[in-house]
Amino acid sequence: MNRTLLIKDGTIVTAVDTYVGDIFVENERISMIGTDLQVKADRTIDAKGKYVIPGGIDVHTHMDMPFGGTYSVDDFETGTKAAAFGGTTTIVDFAIQERGSSLRKAWETWMGKAEGKATIDYGFHMIMREYNDSLGREMGDMVKEGVTSFKLFMAYPGVFMLDDASIFRAMQRSGEIGATISMHAENGGVIDVLTQQAIAKGHKAPKWHALTRPARAEAEATYRAICMAEIADVPVYIVHLSAAEALEKVAEARDRGLPVHAETCPQYLFLSYENYEEPGFGGAKYVMSPPLRAKHTQKDLWRGLRNNDLQVVSTDHCPFCMKTDKQLGKDDFSKIPNGAPGVETRMSLLFDGGVVPGNISLNRWVEIASTAPAKIFGMFPRKGTIAPGSDADLVVFDPNQSTHWSAATHHSRADYNPYEGRTTKGMTEIVISRGNIIVEGGKFTGRAGAGKYLRRSPRS
Amino acid sequence: MNRTLLIKDGTIVTAVDTYVGDIFVENERISMIGTDLQVKADRTIDAKGKYVIPGGIDVHTHMDMPFGGTYSVDDFETGTKAAAFGGTTTIVDFAIQERGSSLRKAWETWMGKAEGKATIDYGFHMIMREYNDSLGREMGDMVKEGVTSFKLFMAYPGVFMLDDASIFRAMQRSGEIGATISMHAENGGVIDVLTQQAIAKGHKAPKWHALTRPARAEAEATYRAICMAEIADVPVYIVHLSAAEALEKVAEARDRGLPVHAETCPQYLFLSYENYEEPGFGGAKYVMSPPLRAKHTQKDLWRGLRNNDLQVVSTDHCPFCMKTDKQLGKDDFSKIPNGAPGVETRMSLLFDGGVVPGNISLNRWVEIASTAPAKIFGMFPRKGTIAPGSDADLVVFDPNQSTHWSAATHHSRADYNPYEGRTTKGMTEIVISRGNIIVEGGKFTGRAGAGKYLRRSPRS
Amino acid sequence: MNRTLLIKDGTIVTAVDTYVGDIFVENERISMIGTDLQVKADRTIDAKGKYVIPGGIDVHTHMDMPFGGTYSVDDFETGTKAAAFGGTTTIVDFAIQERGSSLRKAWETWMGKAEGKATIDYGFHMIMREYNDSLGREMGDMVKEGVTSFKLFMAYPGVFMLDDASIFRAMQRSGEIGATISMHAENGGVIDVLTQQAIAKGHKAPKWHALTRPARAEAEATYRAICMAEIADVPVYIVHLSAAEALEKVAEARDRGLPVHAETCPQYLFLSYENYEEPGFGGAKYVMSPPLRAKHTQKDLWRGLRNNDLQVVSTDHCPFCMKTDKQLGKDDFSKIPNGAPGVETRMSLLFDGGVVPGNISLNRWVEIASTAPAKIFGMFPRKGTIAPGSDADLVVFDPNQSTHWSAATHHSRADYNPYEGRTTKGMTEIVISRGNIIVEGGKFTGRAGAGKYLRRSPRS
Amino acid sequence: MNRTLLIKDGTIVTAVDTYVGDIFVENERISMIGTDLQVKADRTIDAKGKYVIPGGIDVHTHMDMPFGGTYSVDDFETGTKAAAFGGTTTIVDFAIQERGSSLRKAWETWMGKAEGKATIDYGFHMIMREYNDSLGREMGDMVKEGVTSFKLFMAYPGVFMLDDASIFRAMQRSGEIGATISMHAENGGVIDVLTQQAIAKGHKAPKWHALTRPARAEAEATYRAICMAEIADVPVYIVHLSAAEALEKVAEARDRGLPVHAETCPQYLFLSYENYEEPGFGGAKYVMSPPLRAKHTQKDLWRGLRNNDLQVVSTDHCPFCMKTDKQLGKDDFSKIPNGAPGVETRMSLLFDGGVVPGNISLNRWVEIASTAPAKIFGMFPRKGTIAPGSDADLVVFDPNQSTHWSAATHHSRADYNPYEGRTTKGMTEIVISRGNIIVEGGKFTGRAGAGKYLRRSPRS
Repeated sequence: MNRTLLIKDGTIVTAVDTYVGDIFVENERISMIGTDLQVKADRTIDAKGKYVIPGGIDVHTHMDMPFGGTYSVDDFETGTKAAAFGGTTTIVDFAIQERGSSLRKAWETWMGKAEGKATIDYGFHMIMREYNDSLGREMGDMVKEGVTSFKLFMAYPGVFMLDDASIFRAMQRSGEIGATISMHAENGGVIDVLTQQAIAKGHKAPKWHALTRPARAEAEATYRAICMAEIADVPVYIVHLSAAEALEKVAEARDRGLPVHAETCPQYLFLSYENYEEPGFGGAKYVMSPPLRAKHTQKDLWRGLRNNDLQVVSTDHCPFCMKTDKQLGKDDFSKIPNGAPGVETRMSLLFDGGVVPGNISLNRWVEIASTAPAKIFGMFPRKGTIAPGSDADLVVFDPNQSTHWSAATHHSRADYNPYEGRTTKGMTEIVISRGNIIVEGGKFTGRAGAGKYLRRSPRS
Repeated sequence: MNRTLLIKDGTIVTAVDTYVGDIFVENERISMIGTDLQVKADRTIDAKGKYVIPGGIDVHTHMDMPFGGTYSVDDFETGTKAAAFGGTTTIVDFAIQERGSSLRKAWETWMGKAEGKATIDYGFHMIMREYNDSLGREMGDMVKEGVTSFKLFMAYPGVFMLDDASIFRAMQRSGEIGATISMHAENGGVIDVLTQQAIAKGHKAPKWHALTRPARAEAEATYRAICMAEIADVPVYIVHLSAAEALEKVAEARDRGLPVHAETCPQYLFLSYENYEEPGFGGAKYVMSPPLRAKHTQKDLWRGLRNNDLQVVSTDHCPFCMKTDKQLGKDDFSKIPNGAPGVETRMSLLFDGGVVPGNISLNRWVEIASTAPAKIFGMFPRKGTIAPGSDADLVVFDPNQSTHWSAATHHSRADYNPYEGRTTKGMTEIVISRGNIIVEGGKFTGRAGAGKYLRRSPRS
Repeated sequence: MNRTLLIKDGTIVTAVDTYVGDIFVENERISMIGTDLQVKADRTIDAKGKYVIPGGIDVHTHMDMPFGGTYSVDDFETGTKAAAFGGTTTIVDFAIQERGSSLRKAWETWMGKAEGKATIDYGFHMIMREYNDSLGREMGDMVKEGVTSFKLFMAYPGVFMLDDASIFRAMQRSGEIGATISMHAENGGVIDVLTQQAIAKGHKAPKWHALTRPARAEAEATYRAICMAEIADVPVYIVHLSAAEALEKVAEARDRGLPVHAETCPQYLFLSYENYEEPGFGGAKYVMSPPLRAKHTQKDLWRGLRNNDLQVVSTDHCPFCMKTDKQLGKDDFSKIPNGAPGVETRMSLLFDGGVVPGNISLNRWVEIASTAPAKIFGMFPRKGTIAPGSDADLVVFDPNQSTHWSAATHHSRADYNPYEGRTTKGMTEIVISRGNIIVEGGKFTGRAGAGKYLRRSPRS
Repeated sequence: MNRTLLIKDGTIVTAVDTYVGDIFVENERISMIGTDLQVKADRTIDAKGKYVIPGGIDVHTHMDMPFGGTYSVDDFETGTKAAAFGGTTTIVDFAIQERGSSLRKAWETWMGKAEGKATIDYGFHMIMREYNDSLGREMGDMVKEGVTSFKLFMAYPGVFMLDDASIFRAMQRSGEIGATISMHAENGGVIDVLTQQAIAKGHKAPKWHALTRPARAEAEATYRAICMAEIADVPVYIVHLSAAEALEKVAEARDRGLPVHAETCPQYLFLSYENYEEPGFGGAKYVMSPPLRAKHTQKDLWRGLRNNDLQVVSTDHCPFCMKTDKQLGKDDFSKIPNGAPGVETRMSLLFDGGVVPGNISLNRWVEIASTAPAKIFGMFPRKGTIAPGSDADLVVFDPNQSTHWSAATHHSRADYNPYEGRTTKGMTEIVISRGNIIVEGGKFTGRAGAGKYLRRSPRS
């Protein structure tokens, strides 16, 4: 472990600035930035010609998560290692309340899953499967523990879905305690009917996962969530927005001045419905909810990112193996575990497909991948920027090299990579977590358990 | 009863035409129209200087309806008499399925309520409280009986509300059989929470009925209904649209080319939230759902009627007495029976407040009050126009006289009139149902039981 | 000439009604309509199984019009004959004021062109090339002569284009006298620059006519016209709307409640940019302004017609010959006379491409092709409907036959037909102008000079 | 002059960051930022409890400008002093081309006006009164001189207004050279007619300035400018946007992904139409174009600033004296010189009325007042941020003190202050221009002529 670290001559990029300079790190934090710092350090990195950016923040991961009879295949060790290799130094994962059980129990369970394993800092959102007065009180307790966001589902009836009255009450409660409601916005009732009808008609291939989850069902739920939040007079955050029709609802709400936020994910920016038509059972790799959408949606999502109608790109990293887990739905698309790996590829895809072709600026890349999630979820300015006093979570990114993606070389336990064979411009060269180099020269130099739990702040 | 009838020199107004001419009626139907018909008739009416219009069609009434422990106070005799006095010659009322019971039983019950009593022709929509395969089959049977529209509720959880999956299945079914789904579009879950919270805080006055049913909750449900109908690829008809925010959703859908229809009611065009603040318990007169809205909404609704974003004005006539029924909610607004009388005042209010000040044209008056409901609900061209072959349902309306409105003189059993003391320009002078004069000179000249059941057609 | 005429058993279609009946005509007008008229007539037509509709009204034709050094090839005789064969019994053509000259002189010139030649009734709009106080006074005089609409151009700088100040003053004046301003809405300045630049770069083929007139330039001018009309507090009528982007502006204005009207033309509904890429100089056939647009625009225009954002379909009939006139632009697209024949094909195309595939209803066909133009331009109810007292301008249309279109058989003098080789379902069998049969069995039975000048009414 | 400067313990605020730290300045630039810099400096400022922000950038001023027979009363000395006192360290003023003359001549004239007088750094936009090929070539020359933006007028016919063809050609040219077109967007033709009509009717009071410049005329021109820029495929920047209707057009364009930018001004955020109704000739103080709008517009503009539909707040500082210049319009509002002082009050008003009540965040204050104008107009990162390497243009702002505004104490030569008597929370304590303290303790410590000309960069 380095006590002091000096990064020289890098092109320092934040959500607003781009300049050449030196960064000096002491006691895990950035203590100085300057044009030519005259200072000694235990370790000096020459970043000339490279970008130095705040470490990525992925606010939507599911490590070690039970789902449909199996578990997502990355635990907090393999998952955070994969994150680190991809230039992400903070994740916010989801603890899941069991129906009839307490929030604290869920939080403790997930704290246990992460402890001793996480290689980077981590926080938790809390998934609630129901709402009642007692759980409402516990929401206040959780905020004190640093869990300042609660995720609700409008889909998966019988599993995760809450009715509107419960959602509305949870929203009201979030307003009282300065918490944020994150919403999975798809109309579960409609989707359930379509799914059953498809199965009944013998439509069992993976693509039917998409064909039974129409974009309009996402737009509907998105607008419903926004309306309920407006009536409750609280902010709302839409997770993994995938459909142009849903984006339109978010954009309208923001035009009206409502505090509505939304994230999309790389899979919606870089993959599309066509992937479901890969030969055989190949489409199962992309079974996630919401599903991949029509290709033309991609340009709408990029426009949303440019216009700030979308503020964040997270991954919904929830990896399963094709050879085992995904086989559960071999004969019935509705039994395919929902999810795919993504935590490692996010930053690179956004650079290669966003910055390089000019879809977004270099500063906007940093903003959507690090600064904005830090601000929205109560981690700023400790995380999400390069400024004196902030945690020294830094990435040295070489725009002139490139990276090849494959399940053979990625660091998730998933046995496939949705971007198999793709080469992206740019390379994550050095990754620093609170001043410690945890990835360098393609090697992991960190330590399981070095990651700390992040107590996130409520909205002020 | 007249075998033949000649109406001379009237200004005949349809949804498109305005011209001076004569109408000859034989066998209950219009057989000839001309500029100067040379024909003998059993009875000749001189309509010089007066409008002759198709009889009004009110597609939203609740006669003899059980609600909250009481019944709407008009049965099919007093209710249809009131209609007739107001120039309405057809109503479509609602049969109500009991949970666990059949549609046929409901239909037969309501057929029994009307038989021998109705003074004008009538049809039925069917209210469904639930959906399952058996009820789906029965929907097809009902269409054969002339019940071609089914009303569902997104409000009143535990009483009328269906979940989205049920609504969606009913919509799909309606597409198969050419039926129309009519929707009460308010988010019942949110409203229920707000209502309970208001009561808990001691907010019990009638105005809290409105304050717990926000316009945005209507907009939300309206958009949800539209989305589900779009996914099911069927038309949808929004009943008693009251909020500008909901109208916006209908307008957007129609701009996108979707087959979405909507009605508003006179109470939303002529009354407003201020009425709830009448002294004492006076606001209870206006307790109906959706509630009266902010006054500025009225101009939006008129614009919607002009632009054809709203196609129909019905009444939601559901009268209760202030001295008895409404007292059930004396100490708790949520127990006030929802509804008010309106079947008699509709045509006059629309003329006085619509045509006279230029909010709508004379032709549009006929269209929204008669032609459009006839077309949308499968009664055209038998009803809703003045053309050879159509039923001789006609009104002679004198634009140069005026009408004074009061509970003392109206024909509903309701003990109050929401428009008490108002004088409207224009007077319904003669009302003709299938060639028979049923109102003339302020006297009822028809007969209980003369009204016939209308078998309505499905969409083709 | 028949003194009385009886049309038996036809399916009579108006903008609102569809019913089987008989029509009796006396003294050029409809005197009776009935289900089974017992009356003797000089001539009886059996219309069983056929539609009887109001004669078409084409409010946008240019007969005998000087343009770019030549004249449109149809005079009022050949042009109105072509109209008649196509089921159109009224045209409104354009008189053109010369700069520095009077409106009256223009009107008298065009009255002279029509007199003794027109075979059907006709009116005139007045094209103004400039505005000043004296012309403003003359606008009032023209209204008294039945010229109640004035067309202005935002395109063709140096030829027809007025500056915004002049347009605005003409609009204000139209408000004082109840006249309507019709607007050619394209940004002439931008188009002129693009045209000169294209020519300078050697882009001279016909398709460059379209490539130098972007849809956005039409949207811009459309919105500008609407804004100026809104400030002047007067209605405005957009002629030959072709672009989806312009339609959006009209739709928004109408949603805001503004009295904005617009027409489109069959060429924009049935042809598209691809036509400009016909081999050789073939694209010249379609050189008109605005130009044909991208194919996907067609569905937007149909939706506009369904939604009533577009109220009228006219033709902009302005025929030139390919062998002569169009050759003027052989080496320079900007010298190709703008225009194409269309007056004969309109009604058939709208039936075949509108009614048959369900884009519009039978009633809407009548409305956009006859009723609405009659109402908007002060000819209703004399023209545009089938009602007692209206002119007996009627068409017997057989939906079960079909029509083949070709320059070899059409009745315009144009040496080509934009729809060459197309067969449309339906056939215009008999055409009646004020009670006189002018087309029957494919023969012209009318008379040059039988058409009368129509004094149109101002808005009331 | 200080060679080195240390600002200790301030709360450093940029467009994205807020943190406590020290800033070290050498050679006019920021060389180091840190949490506790151990460094010696010629001067140390204790900024504890105070904000340290980038100096304000006002990209819309008119110093020493001829207008309507007089000159704006501030020259580059008094004007930039006023700016400095208000925390603004950079202005971009407007050189004005004379019709028939060259751009270079205009630029040299304005360079001469500023030289030896300006106390802070300054750049120039170029106002063009016409467009031709020669001027187009000169635009390229000007870019090389650092004039990378060109302002055009759609208003003031005969004085500044260009026709659409000229505007469009200038836009095309701007695309070739990476320059930005700034647009005064009001429909000059319509306004001219309304003005003349008002004068003719004897409406001569100052308020008629507003009544003859309708919001819709601004919306029209805004949309026209956007359309022309879209066709030319270039960005466009709308200056001094004042109307909600115009903002809507900008927002729509940005939602479509177009590179459209817009600024508003404090007068539109803090004053309104009511000011024109001040007694006597008092309204003349606010005669500027566009005029002050209806009060409810303010909330739309704030929402636009929050949503980033508006990116910049500039002042349009163009001061005249009430006792002299404004008297030119005593009897005719159209002769009142257009303009008002504002350069000194901008930053304070935005803090007091924006940040304090929560309309915008602290970071957004810095962004709209400094960072965004620097980025849009080619001055970033030299100006507009606090980062190593940037010019040390800094303001120490004390949020706990307050400022009283009055013509008696402000530093413009204007004899009135539009915000007379207003007290704003916050005080501009120390102002630093390139490392030199130019305002401290309410005293000017800078020097006329110390300001340098800024060669701005073209878009890359």
